[in-house]
Amino acid sequence: MLLTASTTFADEGMWLFNNPPLKQLKEKYDFVPTPQWLEHLQKSSVRFNSGGSGSFISANGLVITNHHVGLDTLQKISSEQHNYVRDGFYAHTQKDEVKATDLELNVLMSIEDVTERVKAAVQPGMSPADAEKARRNVIAQIEKESTDKTGLRSDVVTLYQGGVYNLYRYKRYTDVRIVFAPEQQAAFYGGDPDNFEYPRFDLDICIFRAYENGQAAKIQDYLKWNAKGPADGELIFVSGHPGKTDRQLTVDELAYTRDKDVPKLLRMFNRREVLLSAWSARSFENARRAREELFGIQNNRKRYDGYLAALLDPEIWSALQARDQKLRDAIARKTELVDTLSAYDRIKQAQAELEKNAPIYEYLEQERPSVIGYRAPRALQSDLFKYARIILRAADERAKPNGERIPMFRDSRRESLELDLFSAQPIYYDYEILRLTDSLTDFAEHFGAENPLVAQVLAGKSPHARATELVTGTKVKDVALRKEWYGKSAAELQSVHDPMLDLAREIDATARDARKAHDAQEEIKTQAYSQIANARFAIEGTSNYPDATFTLRLSCGVVRGYDEDGRPVPPFTNFAGLYQRAADHNDQPPFDLPKRWIERKSKLDLNTPLNFVSDADIIGGNSGSPVVNRNNEFVGIIFDGNIQSLVLDCIYTDKQARAVSVDSAAITEALRKLYDAGALADEIEK
Amino acid sequence: MLLTASTTFADEGMWLFNNPPLKQLKEKYDFVPTPQWLEHLQKSSVRFNSGGSGSFISANGLVITNHHVGLDTLQKISSEQHNYVRDGFYAHTQKDEVKATDLELNVLMSIEDVTERVKAAVQPGMSPADAEKARRNVIAQIEKESTDKTGLRSDVVTLYQGGVYNLYRYKRYTDVRIVFAPEQQAAFYGGDPDNFEYPRFDLDICIFRAYENGQAAKIQDYLKWNAKGPADGELIFVSGHPGKTDRQLTVDELAYTRDKDVPKLLRMFNRREVLLSAWSARSFENARRAREELFGIQNNRKRYDGYLAALLDPEIWSALQARDQKLRDAIARKTELVDTLSAYDRIKQAQAELEKNAPIYEYLEQERPSVIGYRAPRALQSDLFKYARIILRAADERAKPNGERIPMFRDSRRESLELDLFSAQPIYYDYEILRLTDSLTDFAEHFGAENPLVAQVLAGKSPHARATELVTGTKVKDVALRKEWYGKSAAELQSVHDPMLDLAREIDATARDARKAHDAQEEIKTQAYSQIANARFAIEGTSNYPDATFTLRLSCGVVRGYDEDGRPVPPFTNFAGLYQRAADHNDQPPFDLPKRWIERKSKLDLNTPLNFVSDADIIGGNSGSPVVNRNNEFVGIIFDGNIQSLVLDCIYTDKQARAVSVDSAAITEALRKLYDAGALADEIEK
Repeated sequence: MLLTASTTFADEGMWLFNNPPLKQLKEKYDFVPTPQWLEHLQKSSVRFNSGGSGSFISANGLVITNHHVGLDTLQKISSEQHNYVRDGFYAHTQKDEVKATDLELNVLMSIEDVTERVKAAVQPGMSPADAEKARRNVIAQIEKESTDKTGLRSDVVTLYQGGVYNLYRYKRYTDVRIVFAPEQQAAFYGGDPDNFEYPRFDLDICIFRAYENGQAAKIQDYLKWNAKGPADGELIFVSGHPGKTDRQLTVDELAYTRDKDVPKLLRMFNRREVLLSAWSARSFENARRAREELFGIQNNRKRYDGYLAALLDPEIWSALQARDQKLRDAIARKTELVDTLSAYDRIKQAQAELEKNAPIYEYLEQERPSVIGYRAPRALQSDLFKYARIILRAADERAKPNGERIPMFRDSRRESLELDLFSAQPIYYDYEILRLTDSLTDFAEHFGAENPLVAQVLAGKSPHARATELVTGTKVKDVALRKEWYGKSAAELQSVHDPMLDLAREIDATARDARKAHDAQEEIKTQAYSQIANARFAIEGTSNYPDATFTLRLSCGVVRGYDEDGRPVPPFTNFAGLYQRAADHNDQPPFDLPKRWIERKSKLDLNTPLNFVSDADIIGGNSGSPVVNRNNEFVGIIFDGNIQSLVLDCIYTDKQARAVSVDSAAITEALRKLYDAGALADEIEK
Repeated sequence: MLLTASTTFADEGMWLFNNPPLKQLKEKYDFVPTPQWLEHLQKSSVRFNSGGSGSFISANGLVITNHHVGLDTLQKISSEQHNYVRDGFYAHTQKDEVKATDLELNVLMSIEDVTERVKAAVQPGMSPADAEKARRNVIAQIEKESTDKTGLRSDVVTLYQGGVYNLYRYKRYTDVRIVFAPEQQAAFYGGDPDNFEYPRFDLDICIFRAYENGQAAKIQDYLKWNAKGPADGELIFVSGHPGKTDRQLTVDELAYTRDKDVPKLLRMFNRREVLLSAWSARSFENARRAREELFGIQNNRKRYDGYLAALLDPEIWSALQARDQKLRDAIARKTELVDTLSAYDRIKQAQAELEKNAPIYEYLEQERPSVIGYRAPRALQSDLFKYARIILRAADERAKPNGERIPMFRDSRRESLELDLFSAQPIYYDYEILRLTDSLTDFAEHFGAENPLVAQVLAGKSPHARATELVTGTKVKDVALRKEWYGKSAAELQSVHDPMLDLAREIDATARDARKAHDAQEEIKTQAYSQIANARFAIEGTSNYPDATFTLRLSCGVVRGYDEDGRPVPPFTNFAGLYQRAADHNDQPPFDLPKRWIERKSKLDLNTPLNFVSDADIIGGNSGSPVVNRNNEFVGIIFDGNIQSLVLDCIYTDKQARAVSVDSAAITEALRKLYDAGALADEIEK
């Protein structure tokens, strides 16, 4: 049997730091981390709010993450003259470190259980809408009290689909500067063909430094560097922020995911990949401007391709059905839980309602096509539209009680929102027009050109003409003006007219209605899942871990290879393998090597391990997570999963699924011998 | 006004050779081609049955077409060792000429009007199904009588949406050998970014030789070569095979095209472009195997993108509505025609029925995602499936009366079908599995994994496992076996079991039902359009030309530039411009030059014109059409339209829309000075 829902024999689990798998670790590895061990790892771990993980690796604020997590920053600080994505970056002294335009790091300082207080706010007999409002209110209140009291970013986190609510307090760093990045071709060697594959040869790292009050931050909890990396078979731990898993979804909802949701996402990614690839082929500068977004799209496309392939595999599907049935059967056997079975039907019904509302919600309202980061809705793919809408809505939302606002406008998220809104990231007219033209076309394709909403948005023009008029006409590209308008009250803003602001205004009521309808059905699902989660507790106790929520989790596992098509895939690669792969492909893209790597080959110890695989339980969002050994030493950094790991979204397997890491040994070897970054390596190894 | 439905001031029209625009030519250009002039051009023109046009240019059977028309042949005769697509091909002597694996050329020898006979077969009061059958029968009978009598390929061509039926008799050439092709990088210089754009710098040519009885064919009608090319402002003629236009479609159907049909095609092309691009990036050999198909997909994607943009342009849409309304008004004014208005409603209703039936029809039955060439249906993208289905159905269809067969199995098409079925084109397991896996996944996405048809086709396996089992298990890859099985009767074939054959068998009834339902609705549309066409005749007389049908047409126009964004775009480019463009892009793909072009630059007269534009009315299928002057001399060869020409599908405009040609001067200059093909140039210029 390929798959198992049991954790007895497998290193399954994205565990909460306040509920670590101590029993399993003791039984399987005879190792029990102390509370101090856990707290040190927790406070050494860093969340990149742009969507990834990282860790402190020096007393002076050095933070290591993946290149593809730092890519957003590298893209935003680059220009036609300085292409740090292509050429890499190294600040030889602290003065040379460059501030990220809009990056926020979070460090989890404490966890408090607030389940009782949140649940008490919802009275029996409340309508779903009232229940949602009551819960939103109490959450906003808890967050505000905590922020007022501690000064820390305070988020109430929903776990076990609403079975548990925890208050997470984070220390925030918003002055974050880039210290080092290799050439993207070294970080993402092998490009799309090698993405999600193994063996692998990537130096997928990027090093930042956190600052406080204009000085390098003084860090108490940071990871000690182990320059040897891990050994084959060694026990390792991963501490990071897995974004989202679907492991508690009902099989009905997984069928929906398989038949509707993922295909829809793939159509969107295919569309955008073709758009941006074709545009990128026209010139170097086009390619540079679209680089990060295209990278993300291709990454998602390959990820969802793999996930869909897993869901269409009858063996996997049977395991998912069996898991679902097992829980249903267990529920049916307990008289006090049997009511819970109706929750399955409510979820199915709510899903059908969500589907009906989905087009308008997704095209005109939804902020996030992916789990991470605030984005413009699907019909209006333009950063300028995003800014205009934030300005428009901030004025309206601020006037409401904190708990009744759209989440992004709550007091607890104000600083993050403003960091985004006032970003100095470059805006390119041609790139904005390209994306907006395509997304308006997409909108017209979906609803038909004569649909009244489409006609309203296009205002009697072709998608290209309308996009051009909006992008070149709006003034929100001016950061100072954004600040000014954002400072206005709703009444004051009414007299401000701007093409993009007016568009946001015209569709606001429709878009908000779609949000309301969406939230109402999501609330029904939340309540139903919460009921199922409660039943699962009653059956399983606290022996299990909740689905991923882009909050800090602990995974464990061992370094180990696997078999593929009857051949063993060894756990480690090394520098020699990288040069061999380049030679096998005549150094042609995407298998070419950066100039520096060719010229300095003889300086390297080619036997240095480069990448390794382990069976730790990870998922998107874990990118940049530190890998530590029993001594809590940094031995590697997660940067990918192999193609067989894409099923981990919905079910764990350790047969072939593997997490892929950069070996710590490769990092210091490369810093010292390729990048003349001895000073940086010294600081890390100190 | 950008667009005009009138032909008075524009070079609009894809005219029939038996109804040329003599009056317009006389009035506008004071030039009246003689019947001999027309017959010579007609018989010098060649149809490539793989989907393009060409012309005879020597007494010994030389045929010139576009590289992208010859690409299918170049791909099929290439291997991992000999990459003629990338490196080009030149047969220094006739012995070196290589036979195309499955290419058929047609030369139109005569046209006969059979409208009365076809129309007489349909009795008033017949049901649509009976009418369709009756028409099919009489057409098959006419074709068979003609083939028996003349030995020529005989096709009854439906013109004016069934207003007119003509019998076209073709001389067929099936022994066609490749003589010359440049490197694809010279033929398709600028790649996807430059495709459908101008200015342009492509040597998009390919030269074949037709053989008869193992000898170079003796050709009476071939075009005299003019090595100077045309002059700015000169009157030119284009003789070729435009594939399909939508100019007579009702505005309702154009709205359907805009909102449903084109978006659906684009989703399919986007999907396939991403699939093949990602696979091609893995290795040179992958890229080589997928080259031709990827080229076609990207070409279609860009074409339909441009067409959709045109349909979403309110100015264009207003012109389409006005044209529709004008005809409806004219009909309404004539008492004897007013019944025709109900035809518009019947078309709309049939379209709605077609849409309901479309998924099963397209995924399991439809042969042609594009106008040209027989392909496997959408769910089963595999040449091996295509072969299996032909074998299965040939046995059943042969037993039916000729007129009742699926058209591809009619006697008149037998030779073409067998050329395709017995093709020696290479079959690559990995490439077949890749495409079939993806198309099975597409099928599951569309219908849902639990749909009974999907379950039947997948047979309890994942798409990848099923594709692998079918491709590696079937024996139809063996040409000799295909011949053997194709020779069997239906009864004999029943005892043959083969994975692919069995699959074709299992879904045959469902697929045939979908075809039947499709054909019934198409018949309703055919009759309704025929009624509208008759009304148009009654109003316009014979002053107009029918929509394109991949049959021979004559267009005329002048060599002229245009204005774009306020800047003039001159009509000619030259070799110097090509070298400049490469320099502007640092010789990076797709703007790099073949080695030969770099090394021999100094030999060339850089002022030689390379490409030119004219306002001739062309569309896909015209690729490779000869451009001739008043003296019927070859002065160029059509290979593309600019981006503004993509609207020509549904309406003519000469404001910016231009046909793009290779100048005859560039061809002989390149043959002599770059390719050491002086002997070939001599034969052409003789």
